Amino acid sequence: MYQERMNRVLKEMQKQGLPQLIVSDTASIAYLTGQTIHPGERLVALIIRSNEDHTAVVNRLFPISEKELGMPIVLVDDTDNGMGIEILAELLDKTKPIAVEKNWAAHFLLGVMNHLDVPYTQYTLSSLVIDKVRAVKSLDEIEKMKDVSKDNDQAIGELIDLLPEELTEIDMTKRLELIYHQLDNDGFSFEPIVAYGANGADPHHETDDSTIKPGDSVILDIGGLKNGYCSDMTRTVFYKEVSDKSREVYETVLEANKRAIKAVKPGAKLSDIDGAARDYITEKGYGEYFTHRTGHFIGTEVHEAGDVSASNHDTVEPGMIFSIEPGIYLPGEVGVRIEDLVVVTKDGCDVLNSYPKELLIVS
Amino acid sequence: MYQERMNRVLKEMQKQGLPQLIVSDTASIAYLTGQTIHPGERLVALIIRSNEDHTAVVNRLFPISEKELGMPIVLVDDTDNGMGIEILAELLDKTKPIAVEKNWAAHFLLGVMNHLDVPYTQYTLSSLVIDKVRAVKSLDEIEKMKDVSKDNDQAIGELIDLLPEELTEIDMTKRLELIYHQLDNDGFSFEPIVAYGANGADPHHETDDSTIKPGDSVILDIGGLKNGYCSDMTRTVFYKEVSDKSREVYETVLEANKRAIKAVKPGAKLSDIDGAARDYITEKGYGEYFTHRTGHFIGTEVHEAGDVSASNHDTVEPGMIFSIEPGIYLPGEVGVRIEDLVVVTKDGCDVLNSYPKELLIVS
Repeated sequence: MYQERMNRVLKEMQKQGLPQLIVSDTASIAYLTGQTIHPGERLVALIIRSNEDHTAVVNRLFPISEKELGMPIVLVDDTDNGMGIEILAELLDKTKPIAVEKNWAAHFLLGVMNHLDVPYTQYTLSSLVIDKVRAVKSLDEIEKMKDVSKDNDQAIGELIDLLPEELTEIDMTKRLELIYHQLDNDGFSFEPIVAYGANGADPHHETDDSTIKPGDSVILDIGGLKNGYCSDMTRTVFYKEVSDKSREVYETVLEANKRAIKAVKPGAKLSDIDGAARDYITEKGYGEYFTHRTGHFIGTEVHEAGDVSASNHDTVEPGMIFSIEPGIYLPGEVGVRIEDLVVVTKDGCDVLNSYPKELLIVS
Repeated sequence: MYQERMNRVLKEMQKQGLPQLIVSDTASIAYLTGQTIHPGERLVALIIRSNEDHTAVVNRLFPISEKELGMPIVLVDDTDNGMGIEILAELLDKTKPIAVEKNWAAHFLLGVMNHLDVPYTQYTLSSLVIDKVRAVKSLDEIEKMKDVSKDNDQAIGELIDLLPEELTEIDMTKRLELIYHQLDNDGFSFEPIVAYGANGADPHHETDDSTIKPGDSVILDIGGLKNGYCSDMTRTVFYKEVSDKSREVYETVLEANKRAIKAVKPGAKLSDIDGAARDYITEKGYGEYFTHRTGHFIGTEVHEAGDVSASNHDTVEPGMIFSIEPGIYLPGEVGVRIEDLVVVTKDGCDVLNSYPKELLIVS
């Protein structure tokens, strides 16, 4: 499996004309080697070379073998200059393009630059290769994503059933933790959002001790982690009653969600999928209240590279998995977001979430 | 308070000849403004200018006011080029040095570089300023560090008292969570380490379902969070019995811990404090088994910039807080680490942890 992934990386490197990649993200290293190392501020990176003569640079603190990583290891110490970055720089070919991962710490990148003394234009992003490969899931990965998403359908149903207990937002998330535990999930894939009423009009509301009132919208944006893969879905329901305005907002978001999902098929541009949701919401007069992108890629990380947004004109390929989550947020009033994960198929997409999306009034 | 911190930053900028800093770390932004924003992959940064004409660049998703940040805000969108990095780059003076924070994502730094097209040598680290200011704690911060460390003394005592229950390592950490809760701490400051016997010989052992055996060393490396500040201490105790070898290792680490603490005073080099511990351990024949630095700085983050290591020749100033944590790890056999936090005073240091360090056999 790891060899197959590495082969896809090598093929993409060739296509992009990149002879050497520095791979440093924990999830990317795990993707290519099966080994999860949390380096904190320390140096751990793979140097992937197009001639397959790879090298790992690993702080001595992390006891991992060359066999486990599948390549020779150069050990570095906390006490080496720049925590070992000069040793890594020496392993690069300074006459060729050097690609680093998008989230690599700036001091490591500047450390390499200062040591090699070549123009900044020689540097580019290895993420352009790695993320592209990671974005297309294998059948095994798709099965795992379906499995964890099925659990999430179950979890959100149980959570919605708790609403009549009128718990605080925080207590709802505590109950959700137990639900995931019972479903054999390894906890949350991200800090869940439970937002009552006007709180939901802030798309990144931090769950607090608010309680529910009749007429409130309730945004539940939740995800679990199982077998190393993340689920993520959002449902918005109403408590006891719903105003005409809220109903109109809800139906608008629902239709936008459906239109975007319908637009997903191989060859479609991600910006057009975003447009399918955004244009409808704009047409209904709520464009300025849809304040975020339509979706994000997901897999072993809850937010992976790649988004469904107006500025991303990449085209969709079978095996890609991303969220479709349009929303409308009327400040101080109401928030509605409806999110599903989709996997691109040969001629369209499968939706990984099946919990109903029709307007639900819980009483 | 925030004005005073900003003034210290401005003074340090002047001293280092830096006219503009990009500040992006969540903890640094909170330190300077009191506002905690978790940007995830999105762009949030302060541009601090020596002429006090500061600007914040904030993704529209984060609803924060200019009043809260104490400076004008330029909003950016997910759909702007490079998620808004070109807009940020335009706000910089490309004729002067540009300083970025050490952990800023490489793609943001490369985005600025590509947009401004000036040599890489014009870039440096704003962390050289910000971290230096953050490293010296105010009286208020020292009080908070003493308070949370006092709780940690209490917590480690209660945890050690649980050893006769012969819980798994993981169950010990679950009990520790309750202990911190009872002490009104806001959870862990880091994932605690509970390591029995040979597990303790791996300084970054991931706590698992191992159980304790007579003769085991037990490394307990734990910390809580209170009022935004972190505690962090390690004690190693023995279960029911202790071999002569283990005792010798323990006494060596303890003496190294004491020697390093004794070396802490204003004007001392951090490398000499490391040396005080390391030289003693080396002299006793265990040098190669002390595989990490002697300590790290700590405050609102459990690992702050600055370490007590052979390569750090910075000198110590009153108000600095860091850990002293020598260890010896004999693979497959035994691990011992003894860690205290110290705050530098006018003529030496105060130790923030008072839980006894003499060899303890729990039975």
